Amino acid sequence: MEKATISEVARHEGKEVTLNGWLYNKRSSGKLWFLLIRDGTGIIQGVASKEDVSESTFQHCMDVTQESSLSVTGIIAEDKRAPGGYELQVKELRILQLVEDYPITPKEHGTAFLMDHRHLWLRSSRQVAILRIRQEIIRACRDFFDQNGFVLVDAPIFTPAACEGTTTLFETDYFGSQAYLTQSGQLYMEAAAMALGKVYCFGPTFRAEKSKTRRHLTEFWMLEPEVAFMDLDGDMELAENFIAYIVQRILQNRSEELKQLERDTASLEKIGTPFPRLTYDEAVQILKKKGINFEYGNDFGGTDETVISEGFQKPVMIHRYPAAVKAFYMKNDPEDLSKALCVDVLAPEGVGEIIGGGQREDDYDTLVEKIKKHQLPLKAFQWYLDLRRYGTVPHAGFGLGIERTVSWICGLPHVRETIPFPRMMHRLTP
Amino acid sequence: MEKATISEVARHEGKEVTLNGWLYNKRSSGKLWFLLIRDGTGIIQGVASKEDVSESTFQHCMDVTQESSLSVTGIIAEDKRAPGGYELQVKELRILQLVEDYPITPKEHGTAFLMDHRHLWLRSSRQVAILRIRQEIIRACRDFFDQNGFVLVDAPIFTPAACEGTTTLFETDYFGSQAYLTQSGQLYMEAAAMALGKVYCFGPTFRAEKSKTRRHLTEFWMLEPEVAFMDLDGDMELAENFIAYIVQRILQNRSEELKQLERDTASLEKIGTPFPRLTYDEAVQILKKKGINFEYGNDFGGTDETVISEGFQKPVMIHRYPAAVKAFYMKNDPEDLSKALCVDVLAPEGVGEIIGGGQREDDYDTLVEKIKKHQLPLKAFQWYLDLRRYGTVPHAGFGLGIERTVSWICGLPHVRETIPFPRMMHRLTP
Repeated sequence: MEKATISEVARHEGKEVTLNGWLYNKRSSGKLWFLLIRDGTGIIQGVASKEDVSESTFQHCMDVTQESSLSVTGIIAEDKRAPGGYELQVKELRILQLVEDYPITPKEHGTAFLMDHRHLWLRSSRQVAILRIRQEIIRACRDFFDQNGFVLVDAPIFTPAACEGTTTLFETDYFGSQAYLTQSGQLYMEAAAMALGKVYCFGPTFRAEKSKTRRHLTEFWMLEPEVAFMDLDGDMELAENFIAYIVQRILQNRSEELKQLERDTASLEKIGTPFPRLTYDEAVQILKKKGINFEYGNDFGGTDETVISEGFQKPVMIHRYPAAVKAFYMKNDPEDLSKALCVDVLAPEGVGEIIGGGQREDDYDTLVEKIKKHQLPLKAFQWYLDLRRYGTVPHAGFGLGIERTVSWICGLPHVRETIPFPRMMHRLTP
Repeated sequence: MEKATISEVARHEGKEVTLNGWLYNKRSSGKLWFLLIRDGTGIIQGVASKEDVSESTFQHCMDVTQESSLSVTGIIAEDKRAPGGYELQVKELRILQLVEDYPITPKEHGTAFLMDHRHLWLRSSRQVAILRIRQEIIRACRDFFDQNGFVLVDAPIFTPAACEGTTTLFETDYFGSQAYLTQSGQLYMEAAAMALGKVYCFGPTFRAEKSKTRRHLTEFWMLEPEVAFMDLDGDMELAENFIAYIVQRILQNRSEELKQLERDTASLEKIGTPFPRLTYDEAVQILKKKGINFEYGNDFGGTDETVISEGFQKPVMIHRYPAAVKAFYMKNDPEDLSKALCVDVLAPEGVGEIIGGGQREDDYDTLVEKIKKHQLPLKAFQWYLDLRRYGTVPHAGFGLGIERTVSWICGLPHVRETIPFPRMMHRLTP
């Protein structure tokens, strides 16, 4: 008997195969049982007719419960009405474990309940679709940079100094001294870009934010490219090409999953380059025109971002924020020193910022001044200052948040479903 | 003037281009300057002749120092004697930053000094070669699993319970409760395998081991596949196919870098499947025969592993260790209940264990018993036990340590150079 997976049944049409999996759902019409069987690669409908199977197999069809593990043998037949285009004409059904009281039933459950059962919830078709899209987004990210001559340089997770204040840092004892969990690999990528020209890191980053919004996780994955001899314009071009590439890949390779999530793909099909570019000042004008109470000079909040991006069908790139609200390492705009050469990319449909980046300060004296002005410990930044002592060059980069990107592309209002095991302020399990 | 990178000079043969980069080294023969220029994508020799360049450019050639950033314009010419096959006939040299006293000179430095300057050390050709091989190994890992129908499922970094004792765990305050940094994504992958069939995770893992050996990092990257309906034999087959694939990819795509590291590739070319398989008992016999003082029943130490693998030119797979020295989640061998259905893969050339894995206990009652026997908190494992309550199936997997794999393939005696920013007991910077 040949073993097969559901994803490859087309290759076995007309043949007898054995599938291993779990019962997803079932229904009966007297002498027929329709079993929805899943095996992780897909779902197929098995049909068992009382006339064609042994008594014990028909009894098993009656007995088998949701999520029971099973092994089923039968013939693969094309059936245009069946989901996936094929069905299994059951000859024999073996129950490996008969499950009692599987907690997640087809009825509606509350989110807290589902989150408590995340290890089982992952088995639902919807969660499977999201995870497959997540995988393809991550793969697209890596392919984009690998194919464009970037070198992957993993940034460390343990960092020695609390670079930007300790309030949102997770801390751990490190053999008697203190270590902090990274919030960004950027500073390390700057060092690596001076060695390898074009680099990126991809890994988990951490924020101990006491925030319970639909956009925040304490542990999230970030992709951060950094390029030597690149300015803000190059950075924006890289960001828009990158995002457009990701969206194209998902439309191409995960259309089935998008359909399953009932994602309106028309809006994704519009995501071609170039993206609209607004200065901070222009973005503030949009807020004013829409009657939003916003104080010039502040950073944008989540609601501001939603309002600004509402007017566009593509991601919007907002550049040149007031330097005062941005990090110490950003280079000031030589044409207006009160502005930073930075860019935030806001995804459409209310998702908000998915990319933050910019050109880095590359002048030694200016950077020392900025570190002092931000009241940061100069000593901890000596290695970072070395990059401006020894062959400094213009350079720029950005960070893309994976979970927000998944939430945008999947059309999910909350990031909690975009990562297999989400970690939030009140969620550390399972 | 066309901009070019050194990796693509072949395309510009005979043309004038501008290269941006850094001075790697230089020498002179009176009227000629030979400048070794690096830009992260490669190294090229620039030749400036006093007769052909302006006085200022010739002066710049005299002045320019190691790691000064520069922009150089000239004509690309084929030259079989030159490293890389091309040289740059310099027309103009612009120094962007003239560097004084770059700390890493071509002379020998101690390892501690180089590690303290890791952010600069990365610029050396040798470190660049290692990082490129690391990137290709990681890419090969992902490609292998992606192409074989596995779904990437990122495991969480924050875990709630100290599953296997707290002595080697890093701990952090998590909004008033305790969280631990993951040592392995395995338990989560088991949940994911029940949802998606074949899965893998890839991310950093942490061990607070007070160990200063050449094989240990506190932060290292691990790739962990897990497969539903797979037994130990399938697991070993997967492991050997996986390793053979990685080695082939490196031989194919990173031969230049292996050459630069003076790696003997003949030994890598022998790494084809199948790999030799020994039971624990057979491995112990080897130790006895070689006169090693080893007590039957113990786990193997680093030296034991080296001695066992010495006799083989390929990685050795040792299976069926005494259950008593292995983790609680391993399934016992039904043919000898004192043994676990586990496998360790030892790389040749003294590298030691690069893979540990096995078949998991899938019976609810047996697993409960094991958890109790190991004096672990049953409550923390309720979600994990759910996987044996709701549709349990045979399943297996393993974990591959990236850094040890890089050290083996690159022929490095110490893992500290296999990761961009190593973290060890006494090393948290830069």
